[in-house]
Amino acid sequence: MKTNEALEKLAAYEKTSFALGHAAGLMYYDGATIAPKGSADIRGSTLGELSRMGYNLTTSKETLEMLETLMADKASLDFITARKVSELFRDYDRVRRIPVDEYVAWQELAAKSDAVWHEAKEKDDFALFEPYLQKMFDTAKRIALYMEPDKKPYDTMLDMFERGLDTEKCEAFFIPLRAKLVPLIQKVTAKADQVDDTPLKQSFPVETQRRFSEFLMDVMELDRNHCLIGETEHPFTINFSKYDVRITTHYHEDMLVSSLYSVIHEGGHALYELHIGNDITFTNIGGGVSMAIHESQSRFYENIIGRSREFCGIIYPWLKKEFAPRLDNVTEDAFYRMINKSTPSLIRTEADELTYSLHVMIRYELEKRMFDGTLTAKQLPAEWNRLYKEYLGVDVPNDRKGVLQDSHWSNGNIGYFPSYAIGSAYSAQYIIEMSKNLNLWEEIKSGRLGKINAWFEDRIWKHGKTYDPGKLFESVCGNFNPDVYISYLEKKFTEVYGL
Amino acid sequence: MKTNEALEKLAAYEKTSFALGHAAGLMYYDGATIAPKGSADIRGSTLGELSRMGYNLTTSKETLEMLETLMADKASLDFITARKVSELFRDYDRVRRIPVDEYVAWQELAAKSDAVWHEAKEKDDFALFEPYLQKMFDTAKRIALYMEPDKKPYDTMLDMFERGLDTEKCEAFFIPLRAKLVPLIQKVTAKADQVDDTPLKQSFPVETQRRFSEFLMDVMELDRNHCLIGETEHPFTINFSKYDVRITTHYHEDMLVSSLYSVIHEGGHALYELHIGNDITFTNIGGGVSMAIHESQSRFYENIIGRSREFCGIIYPWLKKEFAPRLDNVTEDAFYRMINKSTPSLIRTEADELTYSLHVMIRYELEKRMFDGTLTAKQLPAEWNRLYKEYLGVDVPNDRKGVLQDSHWSNGNIGYFPSYAIGSAYSAQYIIEMSKNLNLWEEIKSGRLGKINAWFEDRIWKHGKTYDPGKLFESVCGNFNPDVYISYLEKKFTEVYGL
Repeated sequence: MKTNEALEKLAAYEKTSFALGHAAGLMYYDGATIAPKGSADIRGSTLGELSRMGYNLTTSKETLEMLETLMADKASLDFITARKVSELFRDYDRVRRIPVDEYVAWQELAAKSDAVWHEAKEKDDFALFEPYLQKMFDTAKRIALYMEPDKKPYDTMLDMFERGLDTEKCEAFFIPLRAKLVPLIQKVTAKADQVDDTPLKQSFPVETQRRFSEFLMDVMELDRNHCLIGETEHPFTINFSKYDVRITTHYHEDMLVSSLYSVIHEGGHALYELHIGNDITFTNIGGGVSMAIHESQSRFYENIIGRSREFCGIIYPWLKKEFAPRLDNVTEDAFYRMINKSTPSLIRTEADELTYSLHVMIRYELEKRMFDGTLTAKQLPAEWNRLYKEYLGVDVPNDRKGVLQDSHWSNGNIGYFPSYAIGSAYSAQYIIEMSKNLNLWEEIKSGRLGKINAWFEDRIWKHGKTYDPGKLFESVCGNFNPDVYISYLEKKFTEVYGL
Repeated sequence: MKTNEALEKLAAYEKTSFALGHAAGLMYYDGATIAPKGSADIRGSTLGELSRMGYNLTTSKETLEMLETLMADKASLDFITARKVSELFRDYDRVRRIPVDEYVAWQELAAKSDAVWHEAKEKDDFALFEPYLQKMFDTAKRIALYMEPDKKPYDTMLDMFERGLDTEKCEAFFIPLRAKLVPLIQKVTAKADQVDDTPLKQSFPVETQRRFSEFLMDVMELDRNHCLIGETEHPFTINFSKYDVRITTHYHEDMLVSSLYSVIHEGGHALYELHIGNDITFTNIGGGVSMAIHESQSRFYENIIGRSREFCGIIYPWLKKEFAPRLDNVTEDAFYRMINKSTPSLIRTEADELTYSLHVMIRYELEKRMFDGTLTAKQLPAEWNRLYKEYLGVDVPNDRKGVLQDSHWSNGNIGYFPSYAIGSAYSAQYIIEMSKNLNLWEEIKSGRLGKINAWFEDRIWKHGKTYDPGKLFESVCGNFNPDVYISYLEKKFTEVYGL
C-alpha cells in the first residue's frame, strides 16, 4: 500500500469510526434521558453490535495495513496526521489483544449494568446491582490485563482516563492533599454556624429552575445551535462532535444550587468540546484530551467562576427576582457565603469545593481495593459507609445516598474518579496564568464569559488530543503544583468563615 | 456452506442489521424532536455511513452465499424462516442493483432535505427547499429504475410502501371514490352552519394538553414501559423494535383537536408495532407489513374509534373538567358534532374524516406527474394551489399551509400518500368483521381499548410481515370493497348534518 492510498483509507476509516461513535453516543444519551424503561435490553444489544463493528473496523487487516504503512512513513506526515496515526496505532495495539467476544460482552454488560443501576438507585436496592457491579469490576480487570499484561490492572484503568497516571502518582497527590485539607476542614467545621444556607432549601419551582438553566447557558455563551440541555438522574455531558454537544442536569425542587452547579459544571465540559479545532474534529484526536484536563475546565467554571463573589453579582439578582419572594431577606453577601457553605456531607456532586476531594479519595481507595482483590462488591456498601465516617465524619443512612449515588462504576468508568480531584487542583493554577492576559474577575462581572472561553480555547480546547495531557497542562501552567490549590482553598475559606 | 451454518449466519446478520436500523432510527427521531439545529449536517453524514454499512452487509459475498444456500434449501426451512429468507433475498436482489455511492448519497440527501424542509416550513420559504425537493424526486426515480428497470418508477415507489400497489390500482380506487365523495361533500358544505366548532378554538394550555395525551395513552392501553411521546413539527411514529416505540405530536394552543387526533392516530401505529410477535421481532419481518395496513390501524383508532359518540363519552368529561370553564356551555352531543365537523380545508393532518381522501388524491396526482416528467419542483406550489381550489374549493394562502406542510417528500417517503386513503377505506371493513366477535361500541364505552387491541393483535399485529399485505387484509375481511367505506361515511355524515 502506498502512503497516498493509506491516507485515503485513513479518511474513510475516520468517517466510519466517527459514525459508530456518534450512533452509540446518541443511544447512550437517549437511554439516560428519555428512553422508555423497557428498552434497556435491546439498547444494550445494539450498543454491543455497534461496538463489535468498531472492533472489527479497528482490528481489520485493512486497517492494520493502513496503519503500518503510515507508521513506516511517519516522517513524511504532517504533525497532526502523525499524531492521529500514532494514537490510532496505540488503540489498535491495545484493542487487538482483547478477544472480540470479551470486548462486545463488556459493552453489553455496561449498558445493562447502567440500566440496573438506575433501577437499583431508584429503589435503594444495592442487592439488585451487586452482581452487575462485581461483574463490571471483574471484566474491567480482565480487559485491563488483555491490554497491558505487564501492568497493574488498576494502573491501566487510571491511564485510560488520564494518560500517564498511575497509583504511585495518585498516592503522591492524595496523601499530602488529605494531610493539609483535614485540619482546614476541621477549622471550618468548628465554625459551621457562621453560614446558614436554609434559605436555599425552600421550594424553588422546577419550571423556573429550567429558565435559570437557559440564563446560565447564555452567560456561559454556550452556542445553542450546537448545544442543548436534557434531564437525567445523574448529570453528564456527551458530545457527538463539536456540532452537537448535550449537557444534562437534575432538578431538585428543594435544592436551588444542585442544578445550578450541575449546569455550570457540565457547561464547562461542553465549552471544551464545542471549541475543538475544525482541523481535527471528526477524527480520533478531535475531543477533550483527558479526564483531568476535562475536569479542570468543568471545575474551573463551576467553582473558580461559579462560586466567586463576582458571579454572585450576575446570578443573585436573577434568582432574587424570578424566585421572589424567597430570597428577599438574603443579601448578596449572604448568598455568596451560602453557596460556599462547607459541610462534610453524603453526595459527591453536591459537595462543596473544600470537602469535594475527600469524596473522590474514598472512591479511589475503594476502586484500588476492588482491583487488588481485598474487597468485593458485596462488601462495598459497608466499606463505603466506614470511610465516609472516617474521612468526613458522616453516617450514611442508605445506599441510595451512599454507594449507589454515582453512575461511573455502572457504565464502566472505573478509574475515572481521581481525575476529578486532579482537575480541581489544576484549575487553581489557571487563575495565575490567566491573570497575565486578562482580568478574570472583571470578565465575570460583565455577565458574559466569552473572553475567558477564548483564553481556554486558544490554549487548551482547540488542541483536542494533539498533545498528551500532562504536556498540555505544562505548556499552559508550567509544573503541576497542588500547593496552589491548597492555598486557594485556604484563602477562600478563611475569608468565608472568618477563620 | 451448509444449511446449519447459513442459519447461524442468518442470526448474526439479523442482529447486525437490526442494530444499524435501530441506530439510524434513533438518530432520525432525535433529529426530528430535540437535536440542536446546527447538528443536521453531521447527523446526515452519520446516517449516510450507517446506510453504507447496511448496504455492505446486505450485498456482501458472505450474505449472498448465506441467502443462496437457504434459498436452495428452502423446502427444509420452517414457514417463518422461509419467509424471512425470501424477503431478504428480494431486498438483496433490488438493493444490489443500486451503486453504493448512489445509495449512500440518497440517505444523506434525505437527511439533509429533511432538515432544510423543517427550516423552509418554519420560514415559509419554498425556494429554499425547492432544489432539494427536485433532487429527492430525481434521485427516487433513478433509485426506482435501478431496482426495477422494467417497471414504471412510480409503480416501484408505490409497491415499496404497499406490496402489489400500482398506478392502475390507484386509479381504480381513487376515480370512483372521488365520484362518490364529491356530491356528499357538497351536500355537507351546503349545511355547513349546522356545526359550529369555535369552542374548540379557544386557548387550551399546552401543559394540560400534555396531560391529556397521557390520559389518551392510558385509554389506548399503550404500554408506557415501551412507548413514549415526544414533540415535533410534524407528528410521526417510529419503532426500534416492539420494546421501544416512540410517538410524537405537535401542540397548538388554539386547536384542541389537532394534538388529540395526532396522539390517537400515532397511537394506532404504535399499538401495531408494540404487538409484533415475539418470534419475529428483531428480524426483517418483525414490523408492520405495509403502509396501507398501518394506516388502516391508525385511522381506525383515530376515526372509527376516536370520532365515535362512544369515545366522546370518555374524553368529553375529562376535557370539560380539566379545561374548565372553556367547555361549560358545550354539551356532549354538541362536542360530538364539533369533532366531526366537515369543512374543505388546507391541512391534511387536520382534515376531517370526510374530506381527507381528497387531500391524499391531490398528493397522488402531483407525485405521479413529478415522476412522468410533466411537473417540476419549481411548478409544484402553483399546481398544489390549483388542485386545492379545484378539488376542495379552498385558496392556499402560503406554502407553509400548502406544499410545505408534509414531511414525506423531504425524507424520501415518495409514493406513501395513497396508502393513507386505502388504509382509511380498509378500516371501515374491520367494523363489520369485529362485530362478529365483540361489541366495538360497548368496548369503547368502557374507557379501555384492550379488547379491541387484542382483536387486532390476533389477526394482524402479531404477524408482522409474515404475509403480503393484500393477503393479510383478505384473511381478516375478505375482498377489499371501498363501497363499505363510502356507506360508512354517508351514514355518519347524514346523521351528523341531518341531511
